[in-house]
Amino acid sequence: MNGAEALLRTFAQAGVDTCFANPGTTEIQLVAALDEVSEIRPVLSLFEGVCTGAADGYGRITGRPALTLVHLGPGFANGLANLHNARRARSPIINLVGDHASWHLAADAPLASDIVGLASPMSNWVHSAKDADSLPADGAAAVAAALAPPGQVATLIVPQDAQWSDSSGPAPAPTPAAPATVPAAAIDAAASALRDSTSVAIMLGGPALRAPALRAAQRVTAASGDRCRVFIETFGATRDAGRHLPDFPRLPYFPEPALEALEGIDTLILAGALDPVAFFGYPDTPSRLTPESAAVVTLCEPQHDCVAALETLADALGAPSDIALDERTALEPASGELKVSSLGQALAAAIPENAIVVSEAATSAAAFEALSAAANPHTTLGLTGGAIGQGLPTAVGAAIAAPDQPVLCFEADGSGMYTVQSLWTMAREALDVTVVIAANDAYRILQAELGRAGVDEPGPAARALTALSGPRLDWVTIAKGFGVPASQATTADELNSALANAVAEAGPHLIEALV
Amino acid sequence: MNGAEALLRTFAQAGVDTCFANPGTTEIQLVAALDEVSEIRPVLSLFEGVCTGAADGYGRITGRPALTLVHLGPGFANGLANLHNARRARSPIINLVGDHASWHLAADAPLASDIVGLASPMSNWVHSAKDADSLPADGAAAVAAALAPPGQVATLIVPQDAQWSDSSGPAPAPTPAAPATVPAAAIDAAASALRDSTSVAIMLGGPALRAPALRAAQRVTAASGDRCRVFIETFGATRDAGRHLPDFPRLPYFPEPALEALEGIDTLILAGALDPVAFFGYPDTPSRLTPESAAVVTLCEPQHDCVAALETLADALGAPSDIALDERTALEPASGELKVSSLGQALAAAIPENAIVVSEAATSAAAFEALSAAANPHTTLGLTGGAIGQGLPTAVGAAIAAPDQPVLCFEADGSGMYTVQSLWTMAREALDVTVVIAANDAYRILQAELGRAGVDEPGPAARALTALSGPRLDWVTIAKGFGVPASQATTADELNSALANAVAEAGPHLIEALV
Repeated sequence: MNGAEALLRTFAQAGVDTCFANPGTTEIQLVAALDEVSEIRPVLSLFEGVCTGAADGYGRITGRPALTLVHLGPGFANGLANLHNARRARSPIINLVGDHASWHLAADAPLASDIVGLASPMSNWVHSAKDADSLPADGAAAVAAALAPPGQVATLIVPQDAQWSDSSGPAPAPTPAAPATVPAAAIDAAASALRDSTSVAIMLGGPALRAPALRAAQRVTAASGDRCRVFIETFGATRDAGRHLPDFPRLPYFPEPALEALEGIDTLILAGALDPVAFFGYPDTPSRLTPESAAVVTLCEPQHDCVAALETLADALGAPSDIALDERTALEPASGELKVSSLGQALAAAIPENAIVVSEAATSAAAFEALSAAANPHTTLGLTGGAIGQGLPTAVGAAIAAPDQPVLCFEADGSGMYTVQSLWTMAREALDVTVVIAANDAYRILQAELGRAGVDEPGPAARALTALSGPRLDWVTIAKGFGVPASQATTADELNSALANAVAEAGPHLIEALV
Repeated sequence: MNGAEALLRTFAQAGVDTCFANPGTTEIQLVAALDEVSEIRPVLSLFEGVCTGAADGYGRITGRPALTLVHLGPGFANGLANLHNARRARSPIINLVGDHASWHLAADAPLASDIVGLASPMSNWVHSAKDADSLPADGAAAVAAALAPPGQVATLIVPQDAQWSDSSGPAPAPTPAAPATVPAAAIDAAASALRDSTSVAIMLGGPALRAPALRAAQRVTAASGDRCRVFIETFGATRDAGRHLPDFPRLPYFPEPALEALEGIDTLILAGALDPVAFFGYPDTPSRLTPESAAVVTLCEPQHDCVAALETLADALGAPSDIALDERTALEPASGELKVSSLGQALAAAIPENAIVVSEAATSAAAFEALSAAANPHTTLGLTGGAIGQGLPTAVGAAIAAPDQPVLCFEADGSGMYTVQSLWTMAREALDVTVVIAANDAYRILQAELGRAGVDEPGPAARALTALSGPRLDWVTIAKGFGVPASQATTADELNSALANAVAEAGPHLIEALV
């Protein structure tokens, strides 16, 4: 057995079952070895950013790492933007990056580059394999690194001679670490703050965005009364939502409303979230969004068992064990003209039971986000790192991870273009993904930022650099070219009908919604 | 005047006239400033790899740097693969990468990352600007770095507060350095080798691939007789070719025929090229392609005036001043079935006078490369760094750089997908580019590499990972979706006719050639 096969057998024994691949010559033995290790499903993409984004989506849904298989430095670089999002999401991922044979590196061949240098900014763990004998143990170490709670991006660089040389066989699977238990002192501190403070905000994030944590947070508020409000972080990695769960507001995106939301609190309790900061710096607003006068109490960090921490806290406060939710107004299908509000309503109303929702629609998403709390139960995957081009690939990975759950991907025409090649993988793998493109023919968020920067009447250069027109992008035609059935909606009724068809039929569909 | 405007005025004064942009919020003042500095033309792309590849093509044609304008770490990362090619091509480029306001970096906001770490592997010069007052001088230093002969990739990271704060105005343009003169001793050493050796190979590369250098090399061989052969490097950055120039063979891509080509030489003379190495390492072939017993004499390096060096060498050898070229067989249009050979013939016959040819068609390009020596005079831009996804963007940049020269871009269906978004910029800017996609529905080069690795009958995984089928990519439809007129050719006659139409009509066209 060569090193490539021994490495893949190591991964298979550790439960790795999916490889999102865009390989090249320096990965060719790993490609061949995938035929020997049938436990691992290969999924081809046309661009590396699709592979890494898909691995992110897969990791968020399963809690287990998928492999990416990408072609030395430049190919791997194409996947870095979505690894940035994955690192911020704390998704478990194992990147396999082939490299030149070790003895060939000194030749500085055309494709040689500093792969460790490229990997380090977007990886929590980077290792260059030495040879075929140590390669399986390197693989086991990569699994352990990826599974370190709550999840990490691990990058293993595999010289081609370590792939093709004889190996002594696979390495044992590592024992994954469990999430750490929160110290009692942290529970006590949070409980004291909730008892003694006059205005507390709890910020939920990371692992505290799943249903059990949201319910526990609801118990905490029930015991604390009006003094306590709960926020969820602006861009959560994996968040359960819908009418069966408490509806906590997201902290707003722009700093002014975020500062206003937190104004006057004397205590901020962090549960799986970081102390909130502005997405961007502006001349007249601070980096930190928490009032300087407020105390910050950390209940639990992302690597902790945040559900247990919140439950224990609720118990300590004497909270009731079960809280009835306020009745939500049922969502009506949208009607009339298609605009951001009716688009959001149509989408929220169309979310199938138990769906996975990927939202990267930027300025078109506000109404949808507000309404989705009244939608069918679903899980939403957010743009954790702000690197656009995440939506379509993450939908690919989520659909591979959960073949029984429909995936709804709400995209923008600008963001969707960065990894448009995702559509082909959706078609090839017959993934049950409904892509809705909010097509406003603009980088609308940048037009808003021009206004924030005091440019009230942009000149021709700024207009050209923020418009997606001349020609507009014909998403319906592009999707068909990639093998995805597509249609256009120009009214809310057309959108409702297209959504109903797309959800009812298996396989991928794209709907271009003109807003 | 704010820092952004002062920076752009510095660039304009230094002759920079083009900015390939895909900006975000942290570049918004630079976007606005482009309306104040009308000397710089903004060109929007939908993906950063298009921006960097376009800047590479622009730099190769003009010898001057274009700007790229990209969005902090993850956006910049999307452009790294083509910067890898540009660095190997020694193209002058200035990347402008916006970053968070300096005081906001400590907040580690979602989009923060180690931009210097990302930039360093693919840049020759990296600098983080400090403030608005020093920013213009940083810009001048970036110009000087980009123009250091023969050309460099310079990356300037610009915090947003340096853009929006008041500045003392633009900095003076730097005086570009001229290519270094080759020392007389290097000329003497090469002349001695050519007189005394029994079998010499001259390897031309870098700046020695332009017409004057090729003609001077022809003079050298005329004075040296059969003892001397000339090769050109396998992937030259900018090479003049056609029936008006000597037809020197390219060093073959695979190591076996390359080793055979150089077998038996006692001396290798390098003129602008590096000592040749294999593109990839294989178990049974070496890294270096030059025989171990051969002496290596460096006539000139890429930063030198290689034309003068070759001319002086020819004079020293008493070469005649002008050499008549062998008559080339005129190229007939191809006919019959469309396969790699007839595709190559049709394309070579269709090259318009004074065209720029970008070739990234991998396994489909062999026949074309061999025949193009008999084509109309043209300049060809090669895949210097091996990072695929270079062809379409480089064609964009070449067409912007030379609006009076038609551009022919010969692409593969696999390679073209990495930066398919280039098509939109071709449409928006009405660029005179004819794209020919050699559509074989496969990563054919990887299928060949499986064979070289001993996999004679690939299993389902290896077949799936090397095929572009199920569904096949419908390039005609995709191109139309991006606004580029497109047609399909299934015979040589259809291809001839489509090429004639595309070349005759202004603006971009795409032809999908089924091979």
